[in-house]
Amino acid sequence: MDSHHFEKSSLNTVKRLPKRGAYDADTIFGILDQQFLCHISWEDQGQPYMIPTAYGRSADKLYIHGSSKSRMLQMLADGRPLCLVVTILDALVLARSVFHHSMNYQSAVVYGRARQVEGEEKMEGLRVVTEQIIPGRWDEARLPNEIEMKATSVLAIEIDTASAKVRTGPPGDDAPDYELPIWAGVVPLKKRYLSPESDPLMQQDLPVPASVEKLLEDQ
Amino acid sequence: MDSHHFEKSSLNTVKRLPKRGAYDADTIFGILDQQFLCHISWEDQGQPYMIPTAYGRSADKLYIHGSSKSRMLQMLADGRPLCLVVTILDALVLARSVFHHSMNYQSAVVYGRARQVEGEEKMEGLRVVTEQIIPGRWDEARLPNEIEMKATSVLAIEIDTASAKVRTGPPGDDAPDYELPIWAGVVPLKKRYLSPESDPLMQQDLPVPASVEKLLEDQ
Repeated sequence: MDSHHFEKSSLNTVKRLPKRGAYDADTIFGILDQQFLCHISWEDQGQPYMIPTAYGRSADKLYIHGSSKSRMLQMLADGRPLCLVVTILDALVLARSVFHHSMNYQSAVVYGRARQVEGEEKMEGLRVVTEQIIPGRWDEARLPNEIEMKATSVLAIEIDTASAKVRTGPPGDDAPDYELPIWAGVVPLKKRYLSPESDPLMQQDLPVPASVEKLLEDQ
Repeated sequence: MDSHHFEKSSLNTVKRLPKRGAYDADTIFGILDQQFLCHISWEDQGQPYMIPTAYGRSADKLYIHGSSKSRMLQMLADGRPLCLVVTILDALVLARSVFHHSMNYQSAVVYGRARQVEGEEKMEGLRVVTEQIIPGRWDEARLPNEIEMKATSVLAIEIDTASAKVRTGPPGDDAPDYELPIWAGVVPLKKRYLSPESDPLMQQDLPVPASVEKLLEDQ
């Protein structure tokens, strides 16, 4: 499906521990599709900036959104280079030596440029972001009206290149250290949704919607 | 204790939704102290880069570490401006309107510069990072030897300025929307450690150590 590869270049090549690097869209999109919160960095006059924000993926494009007054969106809309990273922490990896302590993780690094979208693609971008956060919610909530659309900015990020880095498995210690009486292993880590809390200002007694039920079931 | 404030400047001032912004060290360090994974961005010749990495805080300083061959550490060691962000996602906030959907989160944005540390501070920096990830582990594991110290680079990040942004509470909808038959509320989200998995290559039958027991208990 997403069977293409991003070409390796000086920009996206994983230099430390290169065997952990991956450049195929399956792996990279697989990481992006597990999350909805990324960090985006850009620079302005030599100063790096970074902000956490929600995103959604649609084929080769990522969408982000925010207030049309957002400094980040205004700067990014001019097409300057950006870097977008999604990181999933899967486990602490505890080795016998401090030196070999590590983490199991999946991270995707995307290099690209953004452009402002309008009209039909703008509404579609909002749908993609909303559905990435909580599938099914778009059809449950009141959709944006004209005033809200004006107050909102939506950017499409075209992926120039990307890479992934993944570590899995138990710790790896130096041979002599395996004899030490020190416990080693992994401590897995998982994001869990807890029981939903209804808005105290609800005027009707409504059940938790299908989107939330599914979020809880699927985890 | 950490009662000072970071002065507001054009760099760190929260411009969107300024009432969510905070500049006091208590709030900012309070966020930094809940986590051990940050994203760091920097720029080189107009290209922004970003990498997720572990950190530890000691008073006004943050430590990061990695291979002495790490491109990130080598670039950052020259003292160029960097941006470090820690984000904690506490809940999805589901409003009646798509427009007012939000998230409850705590994020800390640090602007600073790094310097390479050596000698005693280098070992102390490694201790600070290790203890931030899993308190107590430093005293359980085999400490770094001379060869490992040479293969490792430790940077101290001096915080030039910083800010925090925090959202809590239920959704806020437009007045007429409260009558709509749409469920609204928050879905809390929590990071959970699962049962530790011993390294299959353990040569002795050792119990899970105190550091891991405490990690599981404290959550």
